[in-house]
Amino acid sequence: MRGIIQQVRQLGDAALFTYSAEFDGLELTQLEVTDQLTAAYERVEPEVIAALEAAKENILSYHRHQIEDGFLDTARAGVLRGQLVQPLARVGIYVPGGTAAYPSSVLMNVLPAKLAGVEEIVMVTPPGTAGVPDVILAAAKIAGVDRVFQVGGAQAIAALAYGTESIPRVAKIVGPGNVFVATAKKLVFGQVGIDMIAGPSEIGILATTGAKPDYLAADLLSQAEHDRLARAILVTDDQELAEAVVTAVTAQLPTLPRKDIAAAAWQEQSLVIVVPTQTDMFTVMNELAPEHLEIQMPDPLQYLQKVKNAGSVFLGDYASEPVGDYYAGTNHVLPTSGTAKFSSPLGVYDFVKRTQYTYYTKEALAEDQAAIATLARKEGLEAHARAVEIRFKEEETK
Amino acid sequence: MRGIIQQVRQLGDAALFTYSAEFDGLELTQLEVTDQLTAAYERVEPEVIAALEAAKENILSYHRHQIEDGFLDTARAGVLRGQLVQPLARVGIYVPGGTAAYPSSVLMNVLPAKLAGVEEIVMVTPPGTAGVPDVILAAAKIAGVDRVFQVGGAQAIAALAYGTESIPRVAKIVGPGNVFVATAKKLVFGQVGIDMIAGPSEIGILATTGAKPDYLAADLLSQAEHDRLARAILVTDDQELAEAVVTAVTAQLPTLPRKDIAAAAWQEQSLVIVVPTQTDMFTVMNELAPEHLEIQMPDPLQYLQKVKNAGSVFLGDYASEPVGDYYAGTNHVLPTSGTAKFSSPLGVYDFVKRTQYTYYTKEALAEDQAAIATLARKEGLEAHARAVEIRFKEEETK
Repeated sequence: MRGIIQQVRQLGDAALFTYSAEFDGLELTQLEVTDQLTAAYERVEPEVIAALEAAKENILSYHRHQIEDGFLDTARAGVLRGQLVQPLARVGIYVPGGTAAYPSSVLMNVLPAKLAGVEEIVMVTPPGTAGVPDVILAAAKIAGVDRVFQVGGAQAIAALAYGTESIPRVAKIVGPGNVFVATAKKLVFGQVGIDMIAGPSEIGILATTGAKPDYLAADLLSQAEHDRLARAILVTDDQELAEAVVTAVTAQLPTLPRKDIAAAAWQEQSLVIVVPTQTDMFTVMNELAPEHLEIQMPDPLQYLQKVKNAGSVFLGDYASEPVGDYYAGTNHVLPTSGTAKFSSPLGVYDFVKRTQYTYYTKEALAEDQAAIATLARKEGLEAHARAVEIRFKEEETK
Repeated sequence: MRGIIQQVRQLGDAALFTYSAEFDGLELTQLEVTDQLTAAYERVEPEVIAALEAAKENILSYHRHQIEDGFLDTARAGVLRGQLVQPLARVGIYVPGGTAAYPSSVLMNVLPAKLAGVEEIVMVTPPGTAGVPDVILAAAKIAGVDRVFQVGGAQAIAALAYGTESIPRVAKIVGPGNVFVATAKKLVFGQVGIDMIAGPSEIGILATTGAKPDYLAADLLSQAEHDRLARAILVTDDQELAEAVVTAVTAQLPTLPRKDIAAAAWQEQSLVIVVPTQTDMFTVMNELAPEHLEIQMPDPLQYLQKVKNAGSVFLGDYASEPVGDYYAGTNHVLPTSGTAKFSSPLGVYDFVKRTQYTYYTKEALAEDQAAIATLARKEGLEAHARAVEIRFKEEETK
């Protein structure tokens, strides 16, 4: 892995062409495919384009609330203290290739960066034998990606971190990937920023008497079909409901195209937990800190304040998780594996950085100099004290 | 390192006592020293207490601007979309021991967490043979730390990440430490959140004709005295000024108590860069992306918009960097080693997490169900489509 990164850093594009041939059996003649976006967009079914465009508007209208202003504190005479909020200059988005194409993830990763004001968004994605799927290029066009390169794997991460002749160096890399991509991201972290390393997807559902077993089963299975390691967890205080959900899952599962994956996830990773009280339900769920949390209970908004740890909460019988995966506008890049205890969904805040600033007049510094020098000397940092005091030395010697 | 973490995870407090004896030669009888705070506070010089209390008020008044509200978007009938901003439940602060005690760092790490609303703040710090320095315990009392434990090193990080009989498990660990602490933090990341791993401290100074060489030299040296690896970089368009600063550094350096450290940092890590124009000055400095940036130029506020990458900016002849290290109220935990290109000073935002929420009525879902199903099927995720459609199945079969 370090070898791949080193080769890309030293040889640039040549290394990328070599790895494409070696790992993927592809003889590429060019890396950049930005000029293919419009043609690809025109080949995608109009109803898919319309759904992506509508999803885009919802994602923008939700994430626009996350745009942050700086501040300037002028409360004290002679002192200005403030914070700038500035976009990252250039961001790289990794879009996985492989068996399935996920245009929704392109929108979810790119649009918050656009709202943050990132000047240039660069997408990398491994091509199949037929190139990059049309729907991925179409989603890139819809989201407003500036440049697209057909390169994947650890070598793509290295190219974004260090730059090559074709691929510009970025300040931060986001987007999911396989274990090689995740490992490469960890290795280049520090050189560039990265997003969280995502684990398998999870749903937790809180349901009480009156919830529909069929809905609950369908929602659990929509998570289970992602991945053999996906987790679907129902927590309820109603034993009968729990049993009815298990029965409904057993009925729905065999009819799914991805039934093998869903069955593995359901049987090996998932849980149905029955506890005595609603208080216990929230205690258990807050400890699990699920990526997705559905609350299928009467008057669900009243329970929002009981949620301490979750990535994205879906309230009521009709906010099925796929509503958020595709369309409602909330982000679907969320903290997994209990990390919702300390981290947040992907948002505009991931594509900005803050810079503090301070201005002092001589008079203001004169008021503070004794306290500053006292603290500096208490910490044994004499040069810190003198840096302040030297500003008042000339006058004493006048 | 993994062995230490594993031992603490398995043996709890017993492992902490063993490592204190083995690594530090200390036979501790208790880990918690919270009951010693008030006595320590009373032993510290009144002028130090007064300076810390005043610094606390400045830190609080600056960071209060960073407190973030959630939002609720009700623009569309039948749909609620919102974001909660909640404090982390419990946070651990690591305070280094060793030769010097840095009470200012206690304030800088703890107070943003207090403003975020963190319920419990736990501090760990290695004791010397005379215990934890009074001024560190006093700073903990002033900052409002809830519990203090006299344990350091990788074992302290493991205790915070996994919990022991005495030390409660936290959601996030912040604060600087030596290489063992930094490595342990990287290893427990994912189990808990961590802050950035800080590199050596840096200052960049932009100065033009008219700036005072003595001030510039003193500010460069205040950075150089931190550490042999600290960097002090002057960028100017005035060759004479550059030479005068070098002369002033040479004059001031031998008078410093930490002259050996400062000389090493100045001679081996530092730079004086003369460029033709002011535009070049900003280009060079934005590429360096320094942790601290001083702008000693006339009417300095006009240049703020030219700053693209920096942790904390000090504007004008009287905003010497130690003003921010100790007193102005801006944070002194800042991105180092060029990471200001993608990361931010420590702030209230590091101690909160965001949770999305979505509520849909049946009518709203009915409007969106076709688009959601179209996207789900285009991605090959049939169970996602069905999870939405099942909510409208009963009626069709009625």
